[in-house]
Amino acid sequence: MGKTIAEKIFDAHLRDEPFVGTKVLDIDRVLCHEITTPVAIADLEVRGKDRVFDNTKIKAVIDHVTPSKDSKTALQAKMLRDWARRHDIKDFFDVGRNGVCHALFPEKGYIRPGFTVIMGDSHTCTHGAFGAFAAGVGTTDLEVGILKGVCAFREPATIRVNLDGDLSPGVYAKDVILHVIGTLGVNGATDRVIEFRGPVVDAMTMDSRMTLCNMAIEAGGTSGICLPDKVTVDYLWPFISGDYASREAALADFTRWHSDPDAVYEKSLDFDVSTLEPQVTYDYKPDCVKAVGELAGRKVDQVYIGTCTNGRIEDLRQAAAVLKGRKIADTVRGIVSPATPKIFNEALAEGIIQIFMDAGFCVTNPTCGACLGMSNGVLAEGEVCASTSNRNFNGRMGKGGMVHLMSPATAAASAITGVITDARTLK
Amino acid sequence: MGKTIAEKIFDAHLRDEPFVGTKVLDIDRVLCHEITTPVAIADLEVRGKDRVFDNTKIKAVIDHVTPSKDSKTALQAKMLRDWARRHDIKDFFDVGRNGVCHALFPEKGYIRPGFTVIMGDSHTCTHGAFGAFAAGVGTTDLEVGILKGVCAFREPATIRVNLDGDLSPGVYAKDVILHVIGTLGVNGATDRVIEFRGPVVDAMTMDSRMTLCNMAIEAGGTSGICLPDKVTVDYLWPFISGDYASREAALADFTRWHSDPDAVYEKSLDFDVSTLEPQVTYDYKPDCVKAVGELAGRKVDQVYIGTCTNGRIEDLRQAAAVLKGRKIADTVRGIVSPATPKIFNEALAEGIIQIFMDAGFCVTNPTCGACLGMSNGVLAEGEVCASTSNRNFNGRMGKGGMVHLMSPATAAASAITGVITDARTLK
Repeated sequence: MGKTIAEKIFDAHLRDEPFVGTKVLDIDRVLCHEITTPVAIADLEVRGKDRVFDNTKIKAVIDHVTPSKDSKTALQAKMLRDWARRHDIKDFFDVGRNGVCHALFPEKGYIRPGFTVIMGDSHTCTHGAFGAFAAGVGTTDLEVGILKGVCAFREPATIRVNLDGDLSPGVYAKDVILHVIGTLGVNGATDRVIEFRGPVVDAMTMDSRMTLCNMAIEAGGTSGICLPDKVTVDYLWPFISGDYASREAALADFTRWHSDPDAVYEKSLDFDVSTLEPQVTYDYKPDCVKAVGELAGRKVDQVYIGTCTNGRIEDLRQAAAVLKGRKIADTVRGIVSPATPKIFNEALAEGIIQIFMDAGFCVTNPTCGACLGMSNGVLAEGEVCASTSNRNFNGRMGKGGMVHLMSPATAAASAITGVITDARTLK
Repeated sequence: MGKTIAEKIFDAHLRDEPFVGTKVLDIDRVLCHEITTPVAIADLEVRGKDRVFDNTKIKAVIDHVTPSKDSKTALQAKMLRDWARRHDIKDFFDVGRNGVCHALFPEKGYIRPGFTVIMGDSHTCTHGAFGAFAAGVGTTDLEVGILKGVCAFREPATIRVNLDGDLSPGVYAKDVILHVIGTLGVNGATDRVIEFRGPVVDAMTMDSRMTLCNMAIEAGGTSGICLPDKVTVDYLWPFISGDYASREAALADFTRWHSDPDAVYEKSLDFDVSTLEPQVTYDYKPDCVKAVGELAGRKVDQVYIGTCTNGRIEDLRQAAAVLKGRKIADTVRGIVSPATPKIFNEALAEGIIQIFMDAGFCVTNPTCGACLGMSNGVLAEGEVCASTSNRNFNGRMGKGGMVHLMSPATAAASAITGVITDARTLK
């Protein structure tokens, strides 16, 4: 019987199976940020276990509130910094070199096909775009990961999501994943892996695949996952060119991590995206999704472009294409947070930072900030934000605030008009 | 008997003198930001006096915590925004168009020689660089200013500070004012106007004069003040060219606001700056000042370049000249906050943003943020910051943190080495 990519990764990393169905896996990457890791660090210290299993497999970044906004977040940053220095964790990214974890770590080449990746962060599933099994974990699992380099999982079944057809101009990966979540529901993939397949995925850049996998958790999924292919090889080539004789050789190796044709899925869902419209959420769950036309005209106070979902260069380009030569509405605060310094630099070189500035956007340093209401764009009671992020929970971006999730293009168009707007209809 | 510029401004604006020595002045500019003004707005509302004396003379900006970092600051911003809209205050600067008040308002041409300017902010004295009487006020005075356009002052005596000689290369206005404060002491000019005079001031740009006047309050001064001259005319020309036949005509008019040769000063201090070294503060008061050489080698955790003291384009240029082609120390977080969108844009166009990025700095949006420990760079307990700001009070940038004040050039050099460093000694 064939296996899925997730099953193959589990097989390859199996250290122990203490109970039937509970698998202890070797972990290739333990990723850390300053909000959840200090809790684990403090607990390990209390237990007299201030050690790390392998300082080359641990990567750490300050990204959620950066630079620090108060004494509490300054302490959190200091705890992570001191810990990284104490254990000589070379891949630690402090203020000025830091960016949103799920954009920064892939960009540094840390994630590879077949890897197991854990982090104390819901959107760790993003890294599945590289053909990895990547899951967000709680503090206890994070502590064990840091100390022992292992993590226990019940092996998840896989839901296969087939994406066929061709995306229309102005429709993007964000629209696809919002539509998929709208169909699956917020619990539709709980404790499952979502495997994204089909010609639409094949045609996507790594940036777009990360957008897809990033929101797997919003349907409850443990990890999103894409099969590694030539696009994956090309993205990773600067980091793996020493390991393989050629890109073809790398590709041949990566195909180890392809699901077998006769692999067994819990279920399979087919989508034809050819007629898909840009999608926007309403209400307070990510599965409350409608075509933009149905929500067009709703007033927004703030437009936020960035985050681990849509703060990559491709996203900024899509927004900038809409903003170029235009001004945002006087009634709107536009905020853009390029996800990493590299993305900021690319946007600088391409004139995209200038386009955002000219349009009237506030350009922040790379940070998660506003997405989870922690800094750099928290909403006041009653305010509405058009956002490229991944969660529209009640109060997510500030108590009493409302969030509409959408693509960077739709967000940019909404900034110009001051109301939710289909970018394709802009004059 | 001759008069000082401050006395002339008082005479020209005198509305009433209810008690001997207490003068009620007409106010030309009531400036507002989102930390102190909402308190005044709320009180005026409670009293049934939600009115403004003249919505063209009131200017407002969100600058201290922007974009908002939490629900409280989001509410403060919303209160200022709603009030500006309610009273049709056109010159209101929201997220994306906003910057540090004392950099933004001069840049917009709002401050003119002979003006009276109040704001609920200590560093309002900055605007005296234009030959204005500009003073920070408390909530009650701010409320009266908003409602009636007047403010009561005891007419301050003036201390004349004569600056002679030539600044050495690598020594700047910040070094001059730190040295002056070191001499005057933090109470040396309490309830006084400090009038900056002499060839050193004459040779200074408006940016440098604003740096001088900005820190008058650190010696207790109500306002710093410079006499308006050709440099002032040239700076303001884009805003006043419709009012005067020529720059010469403007200059002739501005000289109304020159102190008379026989004006009476409380005292006069003479400085020859020719041998002045770059200055750095130690301890927790702005008058604790030494030459950089005496403090060289002290470790810093963070370097902050920005603020109403030194966040202008001239300051960024001076820092960038030091940083160009260099990297900051791994142990240092570098943060630069261009003070306004215009300055950010100029820095973009001149390649200065790129220089800061390449050096490893975090480039934030324009904000006051870290200077007063409110956002974007708050220190943790025990951390040390080299800063271009104006206050080194205990805990100013975060509880338990230590601040060394210095020029942008000294701050940039210290970022490179990780210890307090004289930029002139960098290899």
